[in-house]
Amino acid sequence: MAADLYLGIDTGGTAAKFVLTAADGTVVVEGEVPTDSVHAAITLDRVAAAVGAGDRGSLVGVGLACAGIVTPGSGRLGRSPNLPGWENSDLVAPLVAAFGPVPVTLVNDVNSAIYGEYRAGAGRGCRDLVMLALGTGVGGGIIQGGRLLEGRRGGAAELGHMVLDPHGPTCTCGNRGCLEAWAGSVALLKRARALAADGEHHPVLAQLVAERGEDLETRDLARLADAGDQDTLDIFAEAGRRLGQAVGNLINTLDPDRVILGGGVARAGDLVFGPLRATYPPLVLCEASSRIPVVPAELGPTAAAVGAAWLAREQGAAG
Amino acid sequence: MAADLYLGIDTGGTAAKFVLTAADGTVVVEGEVPTDSVHAAITLDRVAAAVGAGDRGSLVGVGLACAGIVTPGSGRLGRSPNLPGWENSDLVAPLVAAFGPVPVTLVNDVNSAIYGEYRAGAGRGCRDLVMLALGTGVGGGIIQGGRLLEGRRGGAAELGHMVLDPHGPTCTCGNRGCLEAWAGSVALLKRARALAADGEHHPVLAQLVAERGEDLETRDLARLADAGDQDTLDIFAEAGRRLGQAVGNLINTLDPDRVILGGGVARAGDLVFGPLRATYPPLVLCEASSRIPVVPAELGPTAAAVGAAWLAREQGAAG
Repeated sequence: MAADLYLGIDTGGTAAKFVLTAADGTVVVEGEVPTDSVHAAITLDRVAAAVGAGDRGSLVGVGLACAGIVTPGSGRLGRSPNLPGWENSDLVAPLVAAFGPVPVTLVNDVNSAIYGEYRAGAGRGCRDLVMLALGTGVGGGIIQGGRLLEGRRGGAAELGHMVLDPHGPTCTCGNRGCLEAWAGSVALLKRARALAADGEHHPVLAQLVAERGEDLETRDLARLADAGDQDTLDIFAEAGRRLGQAVGNLINTLDPDRVILGGGVARAGDLVFGPLRATYPPLVLCEASSRIPVVPAELGPTAAAVGAAWLAREQGAAG
Repeated sequence: MAADLYLGIDTGGTAAKFVLTAADGTVVVEGEVPTDSVHAAITLDRVAAAVGAGDRGSLVGVGLACAGIVTPGSGRLGRSPNLPGWENSDLVAPLVAAFGPVPVTLVNDVNSAIYGEYRAGAGRGCRDLVMLALGTGVGGGIIQGGRLLEGRRGGAAELGHMVLDPHGPTCTCGNRGCLEAWAGSVALLKRARALAADGEHHPVLAQLVAERGEDLETRDLARLADAGDQDTLDIFAEAGRRLGQAVGNLINTLDPDRVILGGGVARAGDLVFGPLRATYPPLVLCEASSRIPVVPAELGPTAAAVGAAWLAREQGAAG
């Protein structure tokens, strides 16, 4: 008889990543299928086909991570801009239809990613963690006493929308001065394009923006900054300082063991971590807590799928 | 035989308030003695004398709340600007010397106040709470799942030092733009005095400041605002908006059942609550959480002593 397997799925707007893990958490298979952002059932059937009948028969738990608001314990996805057809719907039935009558868990994707880092990545051995996921926008996750903090209505850990200056730049959420409006890749690229529009004063950046056009990414900016371009250094430094302000606020609120930074903008490394690490220690009131380490995530793009598999496993153990 | 009693003490820089509670939490005696800010033992002996030998013999637990950093479980007070002689010292020994060999609990005073509100005040029936205590400065408290969130080093819930704008006014902690620098009474009085210095444009406020001198209090400002004075209305409105920004950030972080506002500035009522309640709902990402109520504290100045007695009781039950 095949050993028990847990399946973790992380559904983004374009792709659904999945991992199969053994009972001890080891990842034994990983894969990816295209997301159908209108039909959850079609997407989950694609995952089921990719997993294959043999491994499907060994499944003892499935965790599904989605971008959007998840009310704890409800099995329902609420507001979810990247998955318009999945919004405000029950996801337990299509999960059971695709994978059979196994225990299923639904979780927000950033919550799942921090859970993955907690069990198998940069947060191993800690009980209290905060994570900022610097993608297109900025997501957040909080682990307290070894458990995900989801909040009473699934509204906790929306750390990208911490307002750091009510007169700051406009955020995708409609408010001004959110962390996301400084430290998400959309914000960085917008700032770069604004400077590039004044090509006379910012010729190097203007040339990059002209060359890359709509394909411009934060890694392009990072290359320029690593080569010493002051404009792009400044863009990353501003993101780092605002992240430092947010980290100071989060330490003064939660006093965790460690803060983890993930996502594309975090991969800019010292360009962001340098200004960040110079900013937050003096903002922390409790001196011992001013030395809490801020570290890069370790799991990379599969963090949320790995976390979903761990959550499926632990829900099974608790149930 | 006399019934079991719990003693809760709240030591401020000038006075130590205390309550004796019955096993069901009812307050049976309350009192106050002067604080000796250099000698903890002298202060605690004064409390012991005020309690009296009879009731001392019925004590089954003592909780002591102090302003300052308290490392959970340590029995030690860390940084504590208002109690210079108590800083960085063990307080278990003087408690046992004053009250005999009963279980003792040491807790930060704002943490104790929110615990009091949670068990016997504005947070009754909730499991997840946030409190902002608007005194001279601004303190914070967090209850999660019915337990105080103290953080790994006692550094959690320092909500008065959430930076709301790094270019804002200078705070007592040395940083700029902390919530405390907008919403503590020191900040409000400073702003009032700054306006009053320009008596030509702010004659009403200048007259009040001249009359009250060093005795000026936020309640004086509230009286002027209630009479329609625009300067003082603006001062409270700015505090209210910054509190709204902080509350929005806290709901996006913790998604609690309720937010409680205590302390003198909160007693200005609608002057502060009006702008606050207009500010935070649009900042909250999860729509259901944007309606989380923000309510005034109920227990008043004995909240921290009541909370310390409850904590003593519950630590005894747990041990």
